[in-house]
Amino acid sequence: MVNETQHTCSASSSSKSDGGSSSGSESSKDSSRCSTPVLDADRHERLREKMRRRQESGDKWFSLEFFPPRTANAAVNLISRFDRMGAGGPLFIDVTWHPAGDPGSDKETSSMIIANTAVNYCGLETILHMTCCNQTKDDITGHLQKAKRLGLKNIMALRGDPVGEEWEEEVDGFNYAVDLVKHIRNEFDDYFDICVAGYPKGHPEAESYEADLRYLKEKVFAGADFIITQLFFRSETFLKFMKDCQAIGITCPIIPGIFPIQGYHSLRQLVKLSKLEVPQEIKDVIEPIKDNDAAIRNYGVEQAVSMCRELLDSGMVHGLHFYTLNREVATTEVLKRLGLWTEDPRRPLPWAVSAHPKRRVEDVRPIFWASRPKSYIYRTQEWDDFPNGRWGNSSSPAFGELKDYYLFYLKSKSPREELLKMWGEELTGEESVFEVFTCYITGEPNKNGHKVTCMPWNDDPLATETNLLKEQLEKVNRRGILTINSQPNINGKPSTDPIVGWGPSGGYVFQKAYLEFFTSSEIVTALLKVLKKYELRVNYHIVNVKGQNITNAPDLQPNAVTWGIFPGREIIQPTVVDPVSFLSWKDEAFALWIEQWAKLYEEESPSRMIIQYIHDNYYLVNLVDNDFPLENCLWQVVDDTFELLN
Amino acid sequence: MVNETQHTCSASSSSKSDGGSSSGSESSKDSSRCSTPVLDADRHERLREKMRRRQESGDKWFSLEFFPPRTANAAVNLISRFDRMGAGGPLFIDVTWHPAGDPGSDKETSSMIIANTAVNYCGLETILHMTCCNQTKDDITGHLQKAKRLGLKNIMALRGDPVGEEWEEEVDGFNYAVDLVKHIRNEFDDYFDICVAGYPKGHPEAESYEADLRYLKEKVFAGADFIITQLFFRSETFLKFMKDCQAIGITCPIIPGIFPIQGYHSLRQLVKLSKLEVPQEIKDVIEPIKDNDAAIRNYGVEQAVSMCRELLDSGMVHGLHFYTLNREVATTEVLKRLGLWTEDPRRPLPWAVSAHPKRRVEDVRPIFWASRPKSYIYRTQEWDDFPNGRWGNSSSPAFGELKDYYLFYLKSKSPREELLKMWGEELTGEESVFEVFTCYITGEPNKNGHKVTCMPWNDDPLATETNLLKEQLEKVNRRGILTINSQPNINGKPSTDPIVGWGPSGGYVFQKAYLEFFTSSEIVTALLKVLKKYELRVNYHIVNVKGQNITNAPDLQPNAVTWGIFPGREIIQPTVVDPVSFLSWKDEAFALWIEQWAKLYEEESPSRMIIQYIHDNYYLVNLVDNDFPLENCLWQVVDDTFELLN
Repeated sequence: MVNETQHTCSASSSSKSDGGSSSGSESSKDSSRCSTPVLDADRHERLREKMRRRQESGDKWFSLEFFPPRTANAAVNLISRFDRMGAGGPLFIDVTWHPAGDPGSDKETSSMIIANTAVNYCGLETILHMTCCNQTKDDITGHLQKAKRLGLKNIMALRGDPVGEEWEEEVDGFNYAVDLVKHIRNEFDDYFDICVAGYPKGHPEAESYEADLRYLKEKVFAGADFIITQLFFRSETFLKFMKDCQAIGITCPIIPGIFPIQGYHSLRQLVKLSKLEVPQEIKDVIEPIKDNDAAIRNYGVEQAVSMCRELLDSGMVHGLHFYTLNREVATTEVLKRLGLWTEDPRRPLPWAVSAHPKRRVEDVRPIFWASRPKSYIYRTQEWDDFPNGRWGNSSSPAFGELKDYYLFYLKSKSPREELLKMWGEELTGEESVFEVFTCYITGEPNKNGHKVTCMPWNDDPLATETNLLKEQLEKVNRRGILTINSQPNINGKPSTDPIVGWGPSGGYVFQKAYLEFFTSSEIVTALLKVLKKYELRVNYHIVNVKGQNITNAPDLQPNAVTWGIFPGREIIQPTVVDPVSFLSWKDEAFALWIEQWAKLYEEESPSRMIIQYIHDNYYLVNLVDNDFPLENCLWQVVDDTFELLN
Repeated sequence: MVNETQHTCSASSSSKSDGGSSSGSESSKDSSRCSTPVLDADRHERLREKMRRRQESGDKWFSLEFFPPRTANAAVNLISRFDRMGAGGPLFIDVTWHPAGDPGSDKETSSMIIANTAVNYCGLETILHMTCCNQTKDDITGHLQKAKRLGLKNIMALRGDPVGEEWEEEVDGFNYAVDLVKHIRNEFDDYFDICVAGYPKGHPEAESYEADLRYLKEKVFAGADFIITQLFFRSETFLKFMKDCQAIGITCPIIPGIFPIQGYHSLRQLVKLSKLEVPQEIKDVIEPIKDNDAAIRNYGVEQAVSMCRELLDSGMVHGLHFYTLNREVATTEVLKRLGLWTEDPRRPLPWAVSAHPKRRVEDVRPIFWASRPKSYIYRTQEWDDFPNGRWGNSSSPAFGELKDYYLFYLKSKSPREELLKMWGEELTGEESVFEVFTCYITGEPNKNGHKVTCMPWNDDPLATETNLLKEQLEKVNRRGILTINSQPNINGKPSTDPIVGWGPSGGYVFQKAYLEFFTSSEIVTALLKVLKKYELRVNYHIVNVKGQNITNAPDLQPNAVTWGIFPGREIIQPTVVDPVSFLSWKDEAFALWIEQWAKLYEEESPSRMIIQYIHDNYYLVNLVDNDFPLENCLWQVVDDTFELLN
């Protein structure tokens, strides 16, 4: 959750790769673990299987193509886009391969790392493009091994553009995409799902349309699982191509590539690159409005919608592939108008499931990272099995170190200047910190007129659904109970509930109330006295940066705070308060004061020293009200504490 | 449950070794598995630790001594007694060692097997006595190894009575109990908890009281963990002995052995064997009433209660050990009057937990064996880890074969003649079978005037708490829906609920409604039509003896039907409907028709052929209503089925 219950409330936090078919009644051999019931059969399936099932069920789907960004900042933005567009329910996304951009490297902007992020951090089924010309077998094998290691399972095998004008075949080298397909199958057997490109008008360099079709068949027979086509402008073009493919014995799925026209210049550039011809009827519409971006985009959406409708109505097309150009608006609009955009994706679990094969049985996480799921995934990436952690059966794998703040996906999305406006150019005392927390909660501008839309522990604004809690939260933050995470208690709401529901339909979801905050030792002293009255009802963990830890919870025992009961399944308990991982979270939660906030200010400056003081002296507190059928007592606990202090 | 919800209702099905202190807030390193939260810390503790904790908490306890039975029938009765007396909450029981009775053998009546049954099948913490004189080291080591293999963890080390009048020390042999203590510590390190005997009046063969005390000290210093004393008749005797022990440096627990006088002859025999003298004031009371058993027993209870009160009031005594002579009434009465008998033992789980160390993490079982828990334990005894079964993570260990019907603990407690009276000397058709089921449900006598108090699938009478369901059950059994197991739905009752509660206090327990029955293929055909209407709500498994299986449940996925939510813990789901283990249960459930019922009749007899027909043609059906917050719909399903048939 992005501060205060967002994870229970907001669809936006639940990017998942395949939100549509979901309640998965298929069997799975991996599914019989007591603690790992299958929630969503799709999590276990290969992409080609998902396509097959969707085709069989008549459930239409879409996919999205992106290219790697040029800068680290653009990468941060692209990943947010993955989260937002992932929420619409694409069957997969794909990331193009840019030979000039060091695509297989560990750079933040490489194709490899962007695809890795999409799979592991955004939970999206992902295809990584790979081109082969001008590369050695060893290079290619290295890239493929790395992709496999990172959890990537699908490759789009392409030739790529030869460098220079004149291109000569290399003996024993990769000259065509089919060589890459064969190589993947030789070296990696059936591990990867392989996609190849189809050209509805024939490849511009091909001898003929027919020769190109024969070449496509060769790629498929070498081991490709499905085909995505180059863009085209008329549905007839694709449908003819598809019939021609079938006529020569190509039976695998052929997915039309859709390009919603988004602007005059981008169209011209794409057409030039792809050596396609824009039909006269489109030119006739566009030329007169070429300086009116909005008009062109509107036209592009109309044109794409009507072409897609024709394709879907033909009965031959089951999925649509969109060339997004890394933009959201046009593609999202087309998908919404086609009814393919999942407005309210069914969440298989309260948190976004990672698409890495190793994590496919992961069904429980500590609540602490609820608003920092990417950090949790990053810090547990070395674990050998899931669900795990300190509450796992095997010798507890440690959480990763906190050395990588500057990896782009752990940084704040906002630049320093913006953060200073939100969190204060200059702090005058602890109260000015309270004020920042309070403004974040209320949504009111701070005294300099800036809204506080993120916090070090919450990169997104407070979810609108938390309005019910706002009044309480405002009151306690103003007095120095600096809340960073909470959830309400829930006593059996339907799993289809639009706000708090998750998992297959027909079930019931439950929560214990949870509250987590930083506060001073003075308040902690009073709080501990109050908690004596609630000893049997409220579990607490109270820890400072040095690790001094006060708790009434049985050692090492996790407390389940979110669970669901479903037809024909075992109980699922995806969120726990785990005493041991809390100590790892504590390191991160305290470090964020320094790394994200204190370091905005000069060393030795009063502002920096105020944050440093809080970091050094405050406690991190979490409270669970175990009595979920009764009214949440945690606010009463806080009120009693303030009363005792007065 | 013993047909129809007993497991949710009756304390008697929940023998456990230590019902008192329970809600166990101690930590345990074994406890952190997601699916295995610690419910009862006692399950993980050594007997000496349990004693220590009880002493620290001031929570008084008792233990019970039994001797091995002479016949297999007596063994069946003794095991029932273990279940009944186990329900009162003894800290442990102990089983004496009878050198003449082949005590270490695999006979049904051996000390070893009775102790094994107490631990594994009755879930009782158990001490096995062992004597050493006239035995070789190898014999002793063999016995100890076997005891360890069977899951026994505590040994009472005794010398035993020398054979013959004149006894000579053997060089290098076991001459005294201290030799056995040393041997156990040498060979098994700290594996066993060791108990030794103390003689408040001094051992009859000892040189002197003081010499005997020194010898006791030697036994303790050789590695004994605690002392149980010989019986005595005055509290002063014990209290003086205890002070004398402490004076010479014996600091371990010393537990007084209490012998409630139960009859004139048994007292005389015991006194003769133990060479004790009965105090004159007791003789004076007993002699005049020596032919009045009831009067002597009443006196015995009075005398024991007042002596125990003096012991407990002294502040030096924390537990009392009872010599039961394998009888229930007097000991139970004394314990009830002392307030030590646990009237309503808190159950850590809905089913009786086995005390075998290997099973201490077991926290889930299929519902099918609910009224045959000993059979379930027997058939899973070879499993390497728990919780497990087909829903386990490891390569599914198979259920044990059904070859051992005649092992005493799998047989009916009733003799053939009694079963014939209950189930019919002669059956005239399927309806006469329906009638037997109906009489079992209603508690009314059958047409020959005999009450039906057990069934092949339920060795005990219908629980009185099922009165609410009786009307429905009677109606459906009369019409050929032959119920063998059921539970109502429960939507969050307190874990302390006297009827359905289990687990630590402060929690909530839940159930999905369950119904299991045999019925004809005609009824199954109608039922399947009706179930279409309930497709999303009711899960069913329908199977015949050949294994033809009809289900709407996702393959291999267990359905949790009992679960609990507790403060500071993970969710516990101790009972599941598991599709794979259902097929193992099916074999047993069908076989019971033949083994327990058909075989009462001559081969080829009409009665036998009727049962054989049912065995060959009926289906075993289980139904789960997943919608636990709503009213149970399973009766409606059955009513709809009958309506369709009309």
